Amino acid sequence: MRDVAIIGSAQTKFGKLGKSNTELFCDASLAAMEDANVSQKDIEALFVGNVLGGFEEGQINIGGHLVGALHLGNIPATRFEGACCSGTVAFRDAFMWVASGFYDIVLVGGMERAMIMGTPFSTRTFAMANDCKYEGTTGITFPGVFAMVARRYSKIYDIPLDKLREKMAHVSMKNHKHGALNPHAQFYQKMGNLKVEDVLNSTVVCDPLTLMDCCPFSDGGAAVVLASADIARRYTDEPIYVLGVGQGSLGHMGAQADITKPASRVFSARSAFKQAGLGPKDVDVVEIHDCFTSAEIVASEAMGFFDWGKGADAVESGQTDIGGRPVINSSGGLMGKGHPIGATGVAQVHAIVEQLKGKAPNGNQVNPVPEIGMTDTLGGGFNTIAHTILGRSRR
Amino acid sequence: MRDVAIIGSAQTKFGKLGKSNTELFCDASLAAMEDANVSQKDIEALFVGNVLGGFEEGQINIGGHLVGALHLGNIPATRFEGACCSGTVAFRDAFMWVASGFYDIVLVGGMERAMIMGTPFSTRTFAMANDCKYEGTTGITFPGVFAMVARRYSKIYDIPLDKLREKMAHVSMKNHKHGALNPHAQFYQKMGNLKVEDVLNSTVVCDPLTLMDCCPFSDGGAAVVLASADIARRYTDEPIYVLGVGQGSLGHMGAQADITKPASRVFSARSAFKQAGLGPKDVDVVEIHDCFTSAEIVASEAMGFFDWGKGADAVESGQTDIGGRPVINSSGGLMGKGHPIGATGVAQVHAIVEQLKGKAPNGNQVNPVPEIGMTDTLGGGFNTIAHTILGRSRR
Repeated sequence: MRDVAIIGSAQTKFGKLGKSNTELFCDASLAAMEDANVSQKDIEALFVGNVLGGFEEGQINIGGHLVGALHLGNIPATRFEGACCSGTVAFRDAFMWVASGFYDIVLVGGMERAMIMGTPFSTRTFAMANDCKYEGTTGITFPGVFAMVARRYSKIYDIPLDKLREKMAHVSMKNHKHGALNPHAQFYQKMGNLKVEDVLNSTVVCDPLTLMDCCPFSDGGAAVVLASADIARRYTDEPIYVLGVGQGSLGHMGAQADITKPASRVFSARSAFKQAGLGPKDVDVVEIHDCFTSAEIVASEAMGFFDWGKGADAVESGQTDIGGRPVINSSGGLMGKGHPIGATGVAQVHAIVEQLKGKAPNGNQVNPVPEIGMTDTLGGGFNTIAHTILGRSRR
Repeated sequence: MRDVAIIGSAQTKFGKLGKSNTELFCDASLAAMEDANVSQKDIEALFVGNVLGGFEEGQINIGGHLVGALHLGNIPATRFEGACCSGTVAFRDAFMWVASGFYDIVLVGGMERAMIMGTPFSTRTFAMANDCKYEGTTGITFPGVFAMVARRYSKIYDIPLDKLREKMAHVSMKNHKHGALNPHAQFYQKMGNLKVEDVLNSTVVCDPLTLMDCCPFSDGGAAVVLASADIARRYTDEPIYVLGVGQGSLGHMGAQADITKPASRVFSARSAFKQAGLGPKDVDVVEIHDCFTSAEIVASEAMGFFDWGKGADAVESGQTDIGGRPVINSSGGLMGKGHPIGATGVAQVHAIVEQLKGKAPNGNQVNPVPEIGMTDTLGGGFNTIAHTILGRSRR
């Protein structure tokens, strides 16, 4: 297998955009292709993550239509759906088609129109990512899953729920602070100075989670151009190398020993670390799937950055903020930047690429420019999880 | 890249089955794993094609749930959706993960509950595979697409429509004859002796297509176990080798010069032939996406088996029936065997594997046992097309 590099990346603004899925994908893709100095004729295959297109604009089988819209000829286009993890699943797969030697240059992106659907319809649709037989029939939605995660975390580590809620609030404060500085974020210039009380006292969504413990729904797109590492410098002076990828599955939550320690995340992260020949201590910056405050905390532990039960303390002490290590969600994460489902994983990759190039938004750039970054994306109640590890240097 | 072999394959009965998508996938997968002499611990990744699960049982993100149901541990599971081509897209992708050297043994399958939905709901849902902006707004569904194909074929080759309808009827007669002999077919022991008049005089669906010009909706599942060719004989005495794969995209039909000669099919078939180092004359048996009688005819031309405008004569003269060459749809095809959308491409592969092993249903087996087989799968109005070429001998 060959080394693979990211030679260009981009994302649209996230928020309520009023554009079609095709427009969102094309906006991001054309920007990524410009960043990569490639034209239509260079792209050999297209990979796309999208979840809700069938439901909210009556569009399935969208891959080929994107090829048509971008005038890429007759190249293969493949749509991936792994709920909120779809973008990273598409990225990992695109990586393999280049690593195998089959293609030299491919385009991978994701997009979603989630905010434009409205919350009730989005909630109903997202709930389908759970197992329809064993979970869907209980009526559980994702705020319910991560409220249970918080309550169980409180119980097994003997942290009173009101104390844990304060620690969780620091996830929201940190990520909204970063999002407020990111011009592409849904909450740019908004909520950059939250206090613990602001989070604790906002509307209850699913006890103990309040509105400020939750990420928003968003519209948006993100795209990346991948190339064989051997030819990457023909296109860019700043290739970012894909050092490792991982993916794992869990099945329904009821079959799990402990949903605060999902085996699928441990499996996936370790797969990526093994491929990269690296460990958690080597990682400088991380984009974690902070769909809820409790989600970021348990993810930071399962990825190996902190001991079990210590992730909540880490964020409260500022260890995951800029100046600490690893820095988590310097882009604003899902909470501050937004969560356009199919785009999210690719946007996480774009955020790490910006950090490793020293081009993150002003105030969010980690200095000195980090060497190694990682992304973590979650689809459903830990059912599909994927990771990428990126680096400034080739292995 | 490494050579890849199919070490086991299976399909469920197709028809109205009353089972869940998970049950259909597991039924086919456990049979394929038994055929391959592998157990759960041998499977390193899962690939699945499914289209309608979100709509008809409220289940997206199904890959990981299938891993759970099959007790495969925490391995990666990826869902592919390219409308009716989903199964072959999944197969081609699974092939790459083994060919690259990343995995040694993987499971790929597809399933659908389409018949159980009922025709009106299925028709509405399938129509989403067209471009939602340029095609969906016209109200066109797939019988409309292939009625247009028939009318245009009649016009450009100056074949009177009533004469063309007679030629098209032979597709239905041939495929139903084969389906009636296939115990796994939806129409097993049914409609094995159709006459031209039976097709011409059945209910009009979309002029000039009658009900007997159309494939049915079906429930069903199919699965294949892929392995590195180097280890295949540890598991089976009869590995079938994947010699080539292809995939192409088209975009919306309005942008095409001629929908009887879709560029995406030519591109995809040629990609597969190039990889295999073979041409149309080398192929003994073919499973073609005969969603409508006109669809099989134009596919047989675009794949290079007949000159443009000669495919209709070929089927009428019996050239594509058992005893001719290439034999098309000896399994019954979509028309006689059934069309459980996400399963179809994988079931086509299974049918070719049976032929190349000399194990096709009694009466459908081509003799002498064929050396080279091919599959053709279509998703949407030529928007996603994929091909596989399989052989008894390693290249």
